[in-house]
Amino acid sequence: MAVYTHLGAEVLAGLVAEFDVGELTSVKGIAEGISNSNWLVETTGKDGAGARFILTMYEYRIEVGDLPFFLSLLDHLSARGCPVPRTIHDRQGNLYRLLDGKAVALIEFLPGVSVSAPTPGQAQAVGRALAQMQLAAADFAGVRENAMGRAEWQRLAQECGPDGLAEIDPGFAELVSRELPAVLAGWPEGLPRGTIHADLFPDNVLMLGAQVTGLIDFYFACTDLFAYDLAVTHAAWCFSNDGKHFDPALSSALIAGYEEVRPLSDAERSALPLLARGAALRFALTRAWDWVNTPADALVTRKDPVAFARRLEFYADPANATVFAAT
Amino acid sequence: MAVYTHLGAEVLAGLVAEFDVGELTSVKGIAEGISNSNWLVETTGKDGAGARFILTMYEYRIEVGDLPFFLSLLDHLSARGCPVPRTIHDRQGNLYRLLDGKAVALIEFLPGVSVSAPTPGQAQAVGRALAQMQLAAADFAGVRENAMGRAEWQRLAQECGPDGLAEIDPGFAELVSRELPAVLAGWPEGLPRGTIHADLFPDNVLMLGAQVTGLIDFYFACTDLFAYDLAVTHAAWCFSNDGKHFDPALSSALIAGYEEVRPLSDAERSALPLLARGAALRFALTRAWDWVNTPADALVTRKDPVAFARRLEFYADPANATVFAAT
Repeated sequence: MAVYTHLGAEVLAGLVAEFDVGELTSVKGIAEGISNSNWLVETTGKDGAGARFILTMYEYRIEVGDLPFFLSLLDHLSARGCPVPRTIHDRQGNLYRLLDGKAVALIEFLPGVSVSAPTPGQAQAVGRALAQMQLAAADFAGVRENAMGRAEWQRLAQECGPDGLAEIDPGFAELVSRELPAVLAGWPEGLPRGTIHADLFPDNVLMLGAQVTGLIDFYFACTDLFAYDLAVTHAAWCFSNDGKHFDPALSSALIAGYEEVRPLSDAERSALPLLARGAALRFALTRAWDWVNTPADALVTRKDPVAFARRLEFYADPANATVFAAT
Repeated sequence: MAVYTHLGAEVLAGLVAEFDVGELTSVKGIAEGISNSNWLVETTGKDGAGARFILTMYEYRIEVGDLPFFLSLLDHLSARGCPVPRTIHDRQGNLYRLLDGKAVALIEFLPGVSVSAPTPGQAQAVGRALAQMQLAAADFAGVRENAMGRAEWQRLAQECGPDGLAEIDPGFAELVSRELPAVLAGWPEGLPRGTIHADLFPDNVLMLGAQVTGLIDFYFACTDLFAYDLAVTHAAWCFSNDGKHFDPALSSALIAGYEEVRPLSDAERSALPLLARGAALRFALTRAWDWVNTPADALVTRKDPVAFARRLEFYADPANATVFAAT
């Protein structure tokens, strides 16, 4: 939650002039993004009627080499009718530019708000949108390994160390030492793969009522199991923020919405309990790593790893595997 | 530079419904404001054509008792054609509401960007806009003492202490101990008074080219000397950010613009060198106080007091009094 870089209005006006979007009329730094600085930019628009964009400067963690994958994926999905913001290409056709040595991209602004307390109708719409996105990406040529996939989890756990994990929560180290090998050993082979969002939290979905108006923040998008993407979304949408309360109505609605568009195979459905343990482990471990490695006084608010340790405990309980059973 | 409070979309939608502005369609926390949290809010608008607003939550320093002064001043000035954002009243006519126990106001969005490197044409336009604002407020009924006026400076200097000041810069304590009594003793009596902005930095002016499209952030507005307001604006606009370089072209243009609308009396003109020392002292001391009292790791970026100590040294040099001489 920060704007890391100050950009003067004159510099921004010069940048905007590199795109065929009219002249800069307003710019506000927005308090979103952990790895990026973001500005809400307004211009006169091509036709003088005004237009809005998100200008993103990639500050941390994102490899510039990955930007063509992320930004052309937006174009690909948008062209296929997914509610995804287009990348605005500059006058030379570039997907991104360099400013002060940092990569910046201009991205379409989409209306909608991120819900804090989703309804089942909203969860169902998100399930549908996720499946539509996966199908629309079927002919996307880009390939990107999941940089936060299971190969990373072992490293994250080791770097936190049992003491680091225990400091966050007394039972955390034991939970990880039990779950991590089990999830890695049980990881399913041969399930359908393709381009996935891999981070579809409510923050990354814009909605108007029960309509999804935007899927955003594709900076973890990668090539991985479709059902794992659903598992991540399940972990992100079907619990109270603190992970203490599972909401079965949201869970059913999310899965039903997904299956309206892309029915799960039997193998995927059977794998979901384990994939959900993996999803919870992924966010528990990345958050734990951030917790251990981010100074408490940093500009960025650290997200609570324990909220995902609780989800992991939920998914690890065999009695709860029924939430993924066919209805 | 922060959003201090998280407001869920549902809470914001409920808040927006208390105003006759249509339905919430987008909200972005914006990275502006030191004492406030601010959101750029979009709605369907009364007529369905869309409308934008700034939602401000008053977090620190601002007395709720002062809000009627600030917010009705915006209405007063806007009604008189000043480029000032109107306060949107709620359906019951209230200027502000309470949300989670904090005061929030919905304020008109104005286009324009804050310039970093003003041109003389822009400085002249700002001088004009300042004088127009002062004149337009002539029949404004509100009165508010300058809470950052000279009565405060002694207290701020004492609370920083000579050691606190010397820690910021070796010559700072001596500069303040010499200038503060001199400025207080020389403070002019009987100059024209009225409602002033008192904080018209480039950040608080929105421009499109050389046109002023917005004067914003009236949270230091008060009843004080008109010429002191010009002196503050002079200190804010006519130097490089670090205070090392004075720009005579900006200075002449600013004063000329002001005098196009409101010619200075001889007494005001003679007082300007001292008022400018006061203005530089005010920001040097408030920034020094913040510097001493804000942890280095706070969310808020501390502003450099030395940049205004340098301006104070400039204004304190009698040879530089000529910058305020009639041309």
